[in-house]
Amino acid sequence: MPIKPLKATAMKKAPEDKRDVKLVLEEFGKGILKDIEKRDNPKFITSVRSRSNIKFDEKEGILHLGASKEERNFINTGQAKKFMQTVAIASKSHSFLKENLHTSIRGLFYQLKFSLGEDVDENLFNEQSESNPLIEDLEAALGVKREDLNLSADRKGFLAGNVRIMDKFGDEKLEIDASKQGRSGWAIPSDVDNDIEFVDIKAKYVIVVEKDAVWQRLNEDGFWRKENAILITPKGQASRGTRRLIRKLADNGLPVYVFNDGDAWGWYIYWTIKTGSMNLAYIGKEIATPEAKFLGVTMSDLEKYEFLKKMTMKATEVDLKRAQEMLSYPWIGKHKEWSEELKKVLKSKMKLEQDSLQGPRLTFIGDYIREKIKNKDWLP
Amino acid sequence: MPIKPLKATAMKKAPEDKRDVKLVLEEFGKGILKDIEKRDNPKFITSVRSRSNIKFDEKEGILHLGASKEERNFINTGQAKKFMQTVAIASKSHSFLKENLHTSIRGLFYQLKFSLGEDVDENLFNEQSESNPLIEDLEAALGVKREDLNLSADRKGFLAGNVRIMDKFGDEKLEIDASKQGRSGWAIPSDVDNDIEFVDIKAKYVIVVEKDAVWQRLNEDGFWRKENAILITPKGQASRGTRRLIRKLADNGLPVYVFNDGDAWGWYIYWTIKTGSMNLAYIGKEIATPEAKFLGVTMSDLEKYEFLKKMTMKATEVDLKRAQEMLSYPWIGKHKEWSEELKKVLKSKMKLEQDSLQGPRLTFIGDYIREKIKNKDWLP
Repeated sequence: MPIKPLKATAMKKAPEDKRDVKLVLEEFGKGILKDIEKRDNPKFITSVRSRSNIKFDEKEGILHLGASKEERNFINTGQAKKFMQTVAIASKSHSFLKENLHTSIRGLFYQLKFSLGEDVDENLFNEQSESNPLIEDLEAALGVKREDLNLSADRKGFLAGNVRIMDKFGDEKLEIDASKQGRSGWAIPSDVDNDIEFVDIKAKYVIVVEKDAVWQRLNEDGFWRKENAILITPKGQASRGTRRLIRKLADNGLPVYVFNDGDAWGWYIYWTIKTGSMNLAYIGKEIATPEAKFLGVTMSDLEKYEFLKKMTMKATEVDLKRAQEMLSYPWIGKHKEWSEELKKVLKSKMKLEQDSLQGPRLTFIGDYIREKIKNKDWLP
Repeated sequence: MPIKPLKATAMKKAPEDKRDVKLVLEEFGKGILKDIEKRDNPKFITSVRSRSNIKFDEKEGILHLGASKEERNFINTGQAKKFMQTVAIASKSHSFLKENLHTSIRGLFYQLKFSLGEDVDENLFNEQSESNPLIEDLEAALGVKREDLNLSADRKGFLAGNVRIMDKFGDEKLEIDASKQGRSGWAIPSDVDNDIEFVDIKAKYVIVVEKDAVWQRLNEDGFWRKENAILITPKGQASRGTRRLIRKLADNGLPVYVFNDGDAWGWYIYWTIKTGSMNLAYIGKEIATPEAKFLGVTMSDLEKYEFLKKMTMKATEVDLKRAQEMLSYPWIGKHKEWSEELKKVLKSKMKLEQDSLQGPRLTFIGDYIREKIKNKDWLP
């Protein structure tokens, strides 16, 4: 179902440091206390995160939340338990910030279970689940990210390149030189804002490759060194941390190129990096990189690289359905290049994987990326 | 179904360096050429990897393959295509070793597709699939690991601690100090044998924690520094590289403790580290650490830590079925401690997660591990 683009509303700016987040939480608590003192129904306001309130901002090129707000109330049979749990999360996060300690959603769940006993709904705190509705409620209500609340999200993704990063970790200040991490690379943390800083970025652009195996191939070839690029793999779908890191590198003026499979999953990973995703629309601007370009692989590559004709695979039902869906999203279908690409997939019922470029020789992948960038041969 | 323990057969020793592996591949090729010259049916011998030939070695405490061998033939309607593909893999691996380049199973698949066209069965080269039968055939036939053939397995897992590692990567020699990796830790590579060496191990023991979130918690607390331990997370089921690394640390005289969830998955991860797994029985000794101990969490913890009674979860059908199955494996059921633990689970129908130890305070996990080790309070 296509989402109509609407005028964006400004996002609340992320607080400058953790002291501010503690204050934000204290204000949140005071608001509820005031309600109680006035013998009002304790409440707070958060953004509606359902599909009806997810908008695409044409100018910024990102998915974000619209202006619709909703109230959460304590004296409400359907909301009382969730309200209590949300307030308890706010209180726990305040403690974590004071203690300067982090935990996961699962760790938070057990802290609440310890305090509140059976009154905690496990299903709302499942790390495997994409949505942790209460924490999202709080993030949207306070205008901060969960990482600012010392709640770690799942980390995933690796980086190598001429960039030095300061990791203020506990009492230590560790400088990580991402050009000296060997075959492993630097593992991208959950939170790349608080206590993490770029010391020096010598690299000229960012290349994101979907698969860790392809990242390792390019790392072995010294691709990032020869090109003076930052080589990132999200290892599949990009984590919050990796998306935020890509955004921050773009903020430092680096062009961002994405090199994925030419299939449903590869396209989805690209568009999530570029415009943000529906389920994280509430922090849209923070983790979207609309400047990103899609290098490939594409069906037009078949015309440029003869050998690829032997490398095609049958598109699955999922690939074809996704191609159809994407055509119907105005912010994708409006691009002539994407529209042509997706129509080629639908017509040929074929797809290509990024690994296939290793067919003639293992080192061909790097040549492909170089040539694509040189010729500005990308999709928007 | 219980597997009867049988006398172990010696594993062929892994070759000392890559030149040897190239020779092994050349001998493999010469054998087939000789058959052709003699106008015999080209063939090679590999180990039977089916369940009937998987044995538990009581003395060594590992799962391994028994003595049964089988022949692969070219002139055989059921085997001709697979035989050709296996020989092609051997030939490709030989090239990779000569070029000093690595690729994944998927990269290998496309190299074969490029050379052999449609004659490559994609399903045999699926990275998502646990079994890559042709490569396993070759590993078992040659007595080498796929990592020695320059084929990368999926990497997973992180390490922090007082240990320095030399990563001979391309033309560079990079020394990785695993005590200076900040919040990220050192990402454990696919291959921890070739071109990877311990320079110096100052740590006194190894602690493996199932979940990355718990690893991050302990890393933040500086647990490994205070304890002079090596802190590893396999991030769920341990990869080949992580299992091999744990084995190598044990070879260096370090005790290995494992701290997992007290459920089907946590037990399985532990036993895979300890005895190896059925599907990797063909390289059993290389990746099994029978010296490993299970610290918890256990049902007996409920008697020692009062607060944990509030932290239990309902065991799932999978947990209960697995507990029953494990009791029936002679190498597990024979341990009085495991038998008691599993019976407690079956009786109470409860389980415990490792994260639950954060209930009273985030830093309690470290205290728990310390106390368990101090009191030798573990399962074998």
